[in-house]
Parts: sequence; structure tokens; C-alpha cells
Amino acid sequence: MCQLLGMNANAPKDVMFSFAGLAARADEHKDGFGIAFFEGRGLRLFVDPASARDSLLAEAIQRYPIHSEVVIAHIRKATQGVVALANTHPFARELWGRYWVAAHNGNLLDFQPRLHAAFRPVGDTDSERAFCWLMQELAKAHCTVPSVAELTLTLRELLPYVHRHGSFNLLLSNGEALWAHASTKLHLLERRHPFTATRLVDADLSLDFSRNAADTDRVALVATEPLTADEAWQALAAGELAVLQHGSRVA
Amino acid sequence: MCQLLGMNANAPKDVMFSFAGLAARADEHKDGFGIAFFEGRGLRLFVDPASARDSLLAEAIQRYPIHSEVVIAHIRKATQGVVALANTHPFARELWGRYWVAAHNGNLLDFQPRLHAAFRPVGDTDSERAFCWLMQELAKAHCTVPSVAELTLTLRELLPYVHRHGSFNLLLSNGEALWAHASTKLHLLERRHPFTATRLVDADLSLDFSRNAADTDRVALVATEPLTADEAWQALAAGELAVLQHGSRVA
Repeated sequence: MCQLLGMNANAPKDVMFSFAGLAARADEHKDGFGIAFFEGRGLRLFVDPASARDSLLAEAIQRYPIHSEVVIAHIRKATQGVVALANTHPFARELWGRYWVAAHNGNLLDFQPRLHAAFRPVGDTDSERAFCWLMQELAKAHCTVPSVAELTLTLRELLPYVHRHGSFNLLLSNGEALWAHASTKLHLLERRHPFTATRLVDADLSLDFSRNAADTDRVALVATEPLTADEAWQALAAGELAVLQHGSRVA
Repeated sequence: MCQLLGMNANAPKDVMFSFAGLAARADEHKDGFGIAFFEGRGLRLFVDPASARDSLLAEAIQRYPIHSEVVIAHIRKATQGVVALANTHPFARELWGRYWVAAHNGNLLDFQPRLHAAFRPVGDTDSERAFCWLMQELAKAHCTVPSVAELTLTLRELLPYVHRHGSFNLLLSNGEALWAHASTKLHLLERRHPFTATRLVDADLSLDFSRNAADTDRVALVATEPLTADEAWQALAAGELAVLQHGSRVA
């Protein structure tokens, strides 16, 4: 199994406080890490088959924080697929002239969908196979570029087909919205005014958001386990799909 | 216009000596840089709309050299498309379960091909448009996964369609081979035993390859301008396509 972190904000934000909390869990989840940052339509994707604790790349990323409106991060504990760069989440593809990024926590059994179109796995994980199938089916379901609401409707139809094969906690984004599908474990936090100080569960690190944040700032976070000790993280139910846009959960 | 650097080796190599030579030219080519490293089927792609001279990312990459069999690097001087992450080369897509990467030096006029299939530009450069069209046409030309030789035949048919629209120096790779298409300016170097010491043209930096290289090592480099002062770089002719595999040029 793995650990996931997703962030969506209404203005570009540095996610390194939360990433530090995630990386602190990398002792157990040592088979690679990755982090994807959307900047407008552009994408920065960093992947490394080393542990986020030892990775020189993770160190470099934490030293030069990147501001982004949507971030998806993952630390891997391999279940299917060897430890290799090609098997390291998040995965990225292009669809309708936008990059799409996905990371998965879980384990899918006997999930061998027919991949007959333009999306094929490069590595050999169940996760990338599921992502390619979702991209294929999204592409088939819409003949013009769909809205976030339309994409959400289609995803609500598609995700159960994967979920029935096992645990399928998924973060998915095209830079416009962040979709978080819960299966066994995923927690959501909406951070907004009035901001307070908070501290990480897994590392001796605190941050007072009231010092830097503007009153209008909105940030939504999703993570496998709550990352901070004193904020109101909400557990998502099995099969629940949360859609985050402009830093908030949308209906 | 921009500057290109490509490397193909028969064993994973650190390309940072050559990249330092490229980055030294980033004063003029300051509108972004990118570098893609293949590791087996896996891909690390670093892009930054900042100059390679100032970029904290470029500094981090040079501090932690990555070993790779195929590298494509690019420093950008914008001609078409604003300075933005989405317009920063190299670009990447997936086809037949392999990542494909391209970087372009040149300027294409009135190149608006019909993109009716699975590859669409995310940004607004002529370069990404050409790459998407090449991917689309490669996908249409082969119903099963083609060999490097078959891909080369198809590329020899396709590249002139783009080239007639302007200057089109292109580096393209799927991790198996590196294709270098020359239009106005591209130079090739094959480095092999006996290795010698060499120094960069644009930076006060020397390296004695005879100290580290094994007798069997083979490295092929392509660059817009020769990067080193005392090696036999060969200019490619307009329209010439060089195919590099296992560190050597293949017929």
C-alpha cells in the first residue's frame, strides 16, 4: 500500500509543509515517491524510485518550494510491479490538450481491462493500468471537451468498475479540478479563514497559517491519513468521490 | 531559436559535462530549459520556464547527476508561444506503452496540421504541434509495435512534411533510440575508445574521459553547435536524419 497527498488551492500555494508530513512516513513506504505540480496548463512531474527520505530529488524539491494550484504526491510501498522509475506514481498522460495525473493507493486483483485505444501502461502496475483505462473511457465518453461537472458524472459511472476489483483510493487531476475517490482510506480537510497554527502528526514541525494566508485563501487537502494533529480532517466513505476546485469541495 | 542537446550511450551515463556547456549558452536562450532522462522504460522530465542559468531546478539537477542511456535537453529562446511551463521543451507523450520525448529548434510557419486523433498540444508552440502530428501519424502507420528500423522508415516519410514549413531541427526518442533530424544546424559526435581529455567551448571546464570510461563505452552526442573544442563534431546536412542506438549512429 502507499500514501497519497493531494492539494487544491484557489491561488498558487507551496505544499511543502504537508509534503514534509508525507515524507516522514517514507520509512515504511520506501519504494519510490513522486509529486506532480500543475502550473496553469503546464505540469512539473518529479518521480524517483528511491525513498522520499533518502532521495536527493526529494531533498532538492523541499529546498526550492514550488507554488501550484493542484498537487498530487505519492509515496510507494510496492504491491504490484517491481521498484522502478516506470512504476513510480504519479502517472501522467495527455487528453484533450490537457495533462492528466493520477496516483493510487490500493491493490486491484484480476483487473485486466481491454486497452484498445490510445492509452497503454509503460510500467507493470495495476495502478497505471487503471489510469489508462479511465483515460480511454473518458475519451470515448465525450466527443467535445467536457466541463468539470460532466467529467465528474462520467467518473461516477466509471470508478465503480475499477473499485470492484479491490482497494482503489485514487487522486486524479487535469489541473482544473482534483478528483479524490475513496475506497479504504482517504481524509479531506478544507482550510480557510480564520487560519490557525497547526502541527504535523509525523514530524516535529508547526506552521501558523494565520501569518501568511490572505482571508480569501482556500486550500483543500486530501491524504491517506490526517497529516496534521489539530485540524478537522474528515474521513471519506468507501466509494465516495470528492471533487475539489478553487480550493473547496464542490457538490 | 533554441539550442538542443541529445545523448545516447550504450550504458547509463552522466551528461552533466555536456549540459554545463549547453547551460553556458542560456544567457541568450533564457526563456526556459528542460531535460529528459530515460531510465529503462521510465522517464524523468524536468522543465522550467526560467533560464538554465538562474533556475534553481537546473542547479539542483547539476548537483545530483542522473545516469541515463538517452537524454534530450533544450534551452529555449521563444519564437512562437509565450514563456510558460506548458511551452517549455522537451514535450512528452505515451505511444505503444512507451514514453516519447521531443525537443525542437527552429520555426515553423503555417503549420496547422489536422490533429484528429489522440495527441493534442497542451501549450501553443509550433514545436508541440509538430510533435503531436508526428505521434498521430506514427500511431496510424503501424498497427503493431514497430522496430527502430521500421520507425525510422516512417519518420523519413513524415519529417519532410514538417520540414517544408520552416526550420525543423528535432530530437526525438522513445528510450530505445534517439532520432536527430537536421534542418539548419545540428552537429553529431561519436565518442569511443580511445578516450581523451576535452574542454567545453563555452565554459572553463575540462574533462578527461580516459580516466572514467571503459574501453567498451560508446556515447553519441548531438547538439546545435559543437559543445567541445577538440573533438570531431560533424555537421548534419539539411534534411538528414541520424539514428542513434547503443551509443553509436546506425545506418
